Amino acid sequence: MPGIGRRSAERMAFYVLESSSDYSRRLSSLILEAKKVIKPCRICNNFSLEDICLVCKDPSRNKKIVCIVEHPQDVISIEKAGIFKGVYYVLLGGISPLEGKGPEQIDLRRLENRLAKGEIEEVIIATGSDSQGQATAVFLKSRLAGYKVRVYRIGLGLPLGRQIEHTDSATLKEAFLERKSF
Amino acid sequence: MPGIGRRSAERMAFYVLESSSDYSRRLSSLILEAKKVIKPCRICNNFSLEDICLVCKDPSRNKKIVCIVEHPQDVISIEKAGIFKGVYYVLLGGISPLEGKGPEQIDLRRLENRLAKGEIEEVIIATGSDSQGQATAVFLKSRLAGYKVRVYRIGLGLPLGRQIEHTDSATLKEAFLERKSF
Repeated sequence: MPGIGRRSAERMAFYVLESSSDYSRRLSSLILEAKKVIKPCRICNNFSLEDICLVCKDPSRNKKIVCIVEHPQDVISIEKAGIFKGVYYVLLGGISPLEGKGPEQIDLRRLENRLAKGEIEEVIIATGSDSQGQATAVFLKSRLAGYKVRVYRIGLGLPLGRQIEHTDSATLKEAFLERKSF
Repeated sequence: MPGIGRRSAERMAFYVLESSSDYSRRLSSLILEAKKVIKPCRICNNFSLEDICLVCKDPSRNKKIVCIVEHPQDVISIEKAGIFKGVYYVLLGGISPLEGKGPEQIDLRRLENRLAKGEIEEVIIATGSDSQGQATAVFLKSRLAGYKVRVYRIGLGLPLGRQIEHTDSATLKEAFLERKSF
């Protein structure tokens, strides 16, 4: 599992083994239950308890602005920032040629259906700035080029609260390339 | 000293005390010597061994593009990124109303002389995205408004190599505000 090294995995395994049988039965049934109860939203793929997720259901969200992210947890981070009032489309993955993940890894059909119908005016690509996120952004750009829609990429550059001397070269380079009139 | 807690300070002090008298004499004279030998560049305030620093002296640098930074170490970071081919103006500090540092803390006279003469076409404000850097950027913007010069702020947003879920809310907010056509 991501972020879990051998030591942590061992510690968890021993914890389960030392616990009561009741505990391990409850844990295993909760895992099955969670997987059964939580499913992708039929509109945006976000994790949801119902067919349609809370964001897609919310009448106050602007359905004409779609933010594309790689993972359901990205939705949580962006919602916490409280800046985005449109809806999401969750790829449940991304493209990473180095890891052999090609375009077949992501399913854009439902998004493209809506684009073809002219239901979407603006797409904001909020994939990461790591190699998978950037490769995915470039791929999305080319796929979206065929539709009449404004396409944006979130701003890349100096993160907030950072001093220049503590900023890595790649980010400084981007920050200079992405300078804006002020 | 910045970044040095009580423990580190103690460790250094004990190290000096346990060393030979020769060592402490050499250390103290090197401190005096460094302060005597390294002085601000007469053009840009960057640390320099001579009156004019290596960047200002370099004929291949574009003197019409000036990047304003807070500290000499910022110059080192930006040079490492290898993206900027103009010259610098080092403020040797910044504005921070919360800490009682007002505009009198920074000396813009030499820069404004060159601006008044029309010698500068573009200024890039590369102060940090922390509160001092942002306050300084806003102050510089208003001071530069009186001159015929293009003023830019370096790009703020997602730093390179970052996943959305690992990005703080303030940076995500900025990244959405700073989204750009793609």
